[in-house]
Amino acid sequence: MIPVNKMITSRSTKKDNTVVDLGSCRIGDGSLTIIAGPCAVESLDQMIYLARLLKKMGVAIIRGGAFKPRTSPYSFQGLGEEGLKILSAASAETGLPFVTEATDSRSLEIACRYADVIQIGSRNMQNFSLLREAGKSKKPVLLKRGFSSTLEEWIMAAEYIASEGNQKIIFCERGIRTFENYTRNTMDISAIPAIKELSHFPVVADPSHGTGRRSLVGPLSRASVAAGADGLMLEVHENPPEALSDGPQSLYPAELEALLPSLKALHGACDVA
Amino acid sequence: MIPVNKMITSRSTKKDNTVVDLGSCRIGDGSLTIIAGPCAVESLDQMIYLARLLKKMGVAIIRGGAFKPRTSPYSFQGLGEEGLKILSAASAETGLPFVTEATDSRSLEIACRYADVIQIGSRNMQNFSLLREAGKSKKPVLLKRGFSSTLEEWIMAAEYIASEGNQKIIFCERGIRTFENYTRNTMDISAIPAIKELSHFPVVADPSHGTGRRSLVGPLSRASVAAGADGLMLEVHENPPEALSDGPQSLYPAELEALLPSLKALHGACDVA
Amino acid sequence: MIPVNKMITSRSTKKDNTVVDLGSCRIGDGSLTIIAGPCAVESLDQMIYLARLLKKMGVAIIRGGAFKPRTSPYSFQGLGEEGLKILSAASAETGLPFVTEATDSRSLEIACRYADVIQIGSRNMQNFSLLREAGKSKKPVLLKRGFSSTLEEWIMAAEYIASEGNQKIIFCERGIRTFENYTRNTMDISAIPAIKELSHFPVVADPSHGTGRRSLVGPLSRASVAAGADGLMLEVHENPPEALSDGPQSLYPAELEALLPSLKALHGACDVA
Amino acid sequence: MIPVNKMITSRSTKKDNTVVDLGSCRIGDGSLTIIAGPCAVESLDQMIYLARLLKKMGVAIIRGGAFKPRTSPYSFQGLGEEGLKILSAASAETGLPFVTEATDSRSLEIACRYADVIQIGSRNMQNFSLLREAGKSKKPVLLKRGFSSTLEEWIMAAEYIASEGNQKIIFCERGIRTFENYTRNTMDISAIPAIKELSHFPVVADPSHGTGRRSLVGPLSRASVAAGADGLMLEVHENPPEALSDGPQSLYPAELEALLPSLKALHGACDVA
Repeated sequence: MIPVNKMITSRSTKKDNTVVDLGSCRIGDGSLTIIAGPCAVESLDQMIYLARLLKKMGVAIIRGGAFKPRTSPYSFQGLGEEGLKILSAASAETGLPFVTEATDSRSLEIACRYADVIQIGSRNMQNFSLLREAGKSKKPVLLKRGFSSTLEEWIMAAEYIASEGNQKIIFCERGIRTFENYTRNTMDISAIPAIKELSHFPVVADPSHGTGRRSLVGPLSRASVAAGADGLMLEVHENPPEALSDGPQSLYPAELEALLPSLKALHGACDVA
Repeated sequence: MIPVNKMITSRSTKKDNTVVDLGSCRIGDGSLTIIAGPCAVESLDQMIYLARLLKKMGVAIIRGGAFKPRTSPYSFQGLGEEGLKILSAASAETGLPFVTEATDSRSLEIACRYADVIQIGSRNMQNFSLLREAGKSKKPVLLKRGFSSTLEEWIMAAEYIASEGNQKIIFCERGIRTFENYTRNTMDISAIPAIKELSHFPVVADPSHGTGRRSLVGPLSRASVAAGADGLMLEVHENPPEALSDGPQSLYPAELEALLPSLKALHGACDVA
Repeated sequence: MIPVNKMITSRSTKKDNTVVDLGSCRIGDGSLTIIAGPCAVESLDQMIYLARLLKKMGVAIIRGGAFKPRTSPYSFQGLGEEGLKILSAASAETGLPFVTEATDSRSLEIACRYADVIQIGSRNMQNFSLLREAGKSKKPVLLKRGFSSTLEEWIMAAEYIASEGNQKIIFCERGIRTFENYTRNTMDISAIPAIKELSHFPVVADPSHGTGRRSLVGPLSRASVAAGADGLMLEVHENPPEALSDGPQSLYPAELEALLPSLKALHGACDVA
Repeated sequence: MIPVNKMITSRSTKKDNTVVDLGSCRIGDGSLTIIAGPCAVESLDQMIYLARLLKKMGVAIIRGGAFKPRTSPYSFQGLGEEGLKILSAASAETGLPFVTEATDSRSLEIACRYADVIQIGSRNMQNFSLLREAGKSKKPVLLKRGFSSTLEEWIMAAEYIASEGNQKIIFCERGIRTFENYTRNTMDISAIPAIKELSHFPVVADPSHGTGRRSLVGPLSRASVAAGADGLMLEVHENPPEALSDGPQSLYPAELEALLPSLKALHGACDVA
């Protein structure tokens, strides 16, 4: 069912893992890359504060949303280009690269001017025009799985990017929609090793959206690492109950700080294994 | 869970049904509107041939895809603007309006120059930029349900269109993704009366994509009418085994011709009921 | 994927529709059989009262639960054999046959002594021992679809019954579990014509459980008839807000009385079609 | 949504973890319990051969099916009581306890005479009569999650067992049914920590059924351990291509032998973490 030969993204086409190199860090080389930050950028002070904390904790990449796809047109839609300027300032302050979402050709064009990695979100996984433009941009692309997409469709979405000459692709599993409602989504941890069987690009996991519950982010982070993830993307907020978006799934900084060493230990144990 | 007050699209805001008036036909006024045509426009001869047949059968609106969202970048992607010119010619020939899909801002801008109704497809139901632009266009918009979207998300997507001042919205149920694989999708027939409870806009059904099997298109068309659909969108092809896209779910012209009177009879019986 | 040859239940083995004959009514002969009654039998007075009303409306079969499978061990579990005696009294009073659920070998043995049709519920669709025993009983069996079962699994469950020499099988579609939560389940109306393609046994629909909402029972009943259902199973209660089980999906008697003529009209229109 | 107070199974009723003590091993005390064996018992020679190997590898509990619930009545249904005698012989030979599935009251009664742990399978998770009888048996019960059951329903099923006075319950996550078909099921790894939040009983994971693919059993075993599972249940067969049931998901003995040390290392790293 999964087409294996001829496709640029296919493991059968290229046996070796592809490493996405951001200069200050490399994703897919066997290391564990931590991406963290707030769901949405809210202010300069917030981002500078968080970025410094994250830097100290050993986080490799900052995340933050400036163009937010929201179910309702009346929800907070992000700060737009202003948010990207804030992210750039936080990045300059800490030396950490940052990833941010683009939702259409306009925001992609703007994001490419500021960001180190472009995120294509779950709802846009089959926005084929956007995929092609992300491909043309030549920027590293973090491609989230559509919340009801098959592995085959996900790889085909990556193929849209790759077919435009861009092989800096990072898959990101963020949970699928099922009947269960204790969690926001159901993380498909099997997607991590399955994608690595089928493709040579790195895979990271997003347990924040994947579970939607702060208390489950730690266990699912550990599970993702043990399943072979090349990295994790985690939401953290200085005051989750006041977050403009996704508070219930955002870690407190102290929780993230406590979690990271356990992930490193686990990653080490997997290496030995 | 479904927000009911204040939203433009909400039934609680406007008790009366909204009718989308295309001049030659009205959707949502209690009549049954039939939309039919090939999945993808393939040639001028094909479209003229089919359009004449459809006109004779009493079909009200022609459909045909020129910009095709395809899972694989290597599948047939549609004829683009050339396809729209063909649809316009078929429309001029028969006097029937036509609907076609736009997948991004560029194809929307082009489609608005030719088409009578703009379709937003299932994969783009939460492409919020596209929804806003479709809202600004002021063209009638046929909004397909995302294949794993809740009713609430679907109505919120319509609200994006409406919030830009466009109230010419037609909902289109086209099946959701489930574990069943005998059918391509599972048609959620309950969505038809549910949307009519929650919103004042008309609802049509697409049993071709909804079932993916020619043999089930008839029964599900009847079910949709009986559940209160304001119209149906049906794929028809002069030679389905040779169709460039979606052959297995396309009706033969003779099948469509045989189906239509039964739908009218059923619609009449529902009126009495 | 669906095995077609050799199976007793398969359409390819027997081209003609199988009719299940209950004496006072026949299911699968092209007529529309209405089955109605409360979710759970609550008292003798209730059942006699309802049965007389249903008889007057033209309902063909009474339904009522005496052995109730409930998610929680602390919910009302039904009146047991006492409930069956009540159903028998209502049946004797009106001359209508009745259907009731058996959930294990003990309740099956008891139910067989009283009931005209044995229901195997959704949660027991793959209770293979119970299926075999229902097969051995030689009683007509109404086999509900498991709430996440494929058509293939459903037919295989019927094959368990048939393989014991019992060919009095009635399929009953009652909705599947999806991500949607506006409805209790998502009725898979396409299962009705699909099962009729794949098997020769009659199919009825249960829009009460299928939707879980009183307001949607009418539209989905009509849709089921239009899709080719041989009958409907409807929950009705003399005072739904006080029902011991499934009140929100139970019709008031007056609603059922108003619905039935529209279903007959629709069924007639389908015949012509 | 999940009821928290008053239920026997609820974490709010009992803060401490419940440990299920089998004499030779304890499940839920912080250790990692490995359960392994073939899907179905096929012969005495096979079981003795495998049991000796498993004993040597440090496996704590043997598994093997004697009463097999199969989708088709014409598939291999297991050896019945003969299979239990074989399992008992293998158990006597190695000193390892064994778990086997009961599918109805008759097989439960027989299994209780031989087995150390009774498995209630996914299809019987809401077979409430069987749950009550398993409760009355006082045997340790391994309760698999229904393949489309919510966490709340799963805990309620355990409550049926507990309400009969049996608190020797082990939850077993074995994957849920989704639209994805690269894997047989989608393992819900988040269920492991979620159940531990909601209940005090131990949780094990079954990546063999959960993935259906041999190549994914290792990564998902590691993920389960990292997410906090108290144990794993793994299918192993001396010659998977010839297995009478579930060959594609069964490990070769050498694969299991290679996997186990990595799981121990990971479990150790989690403890430190």
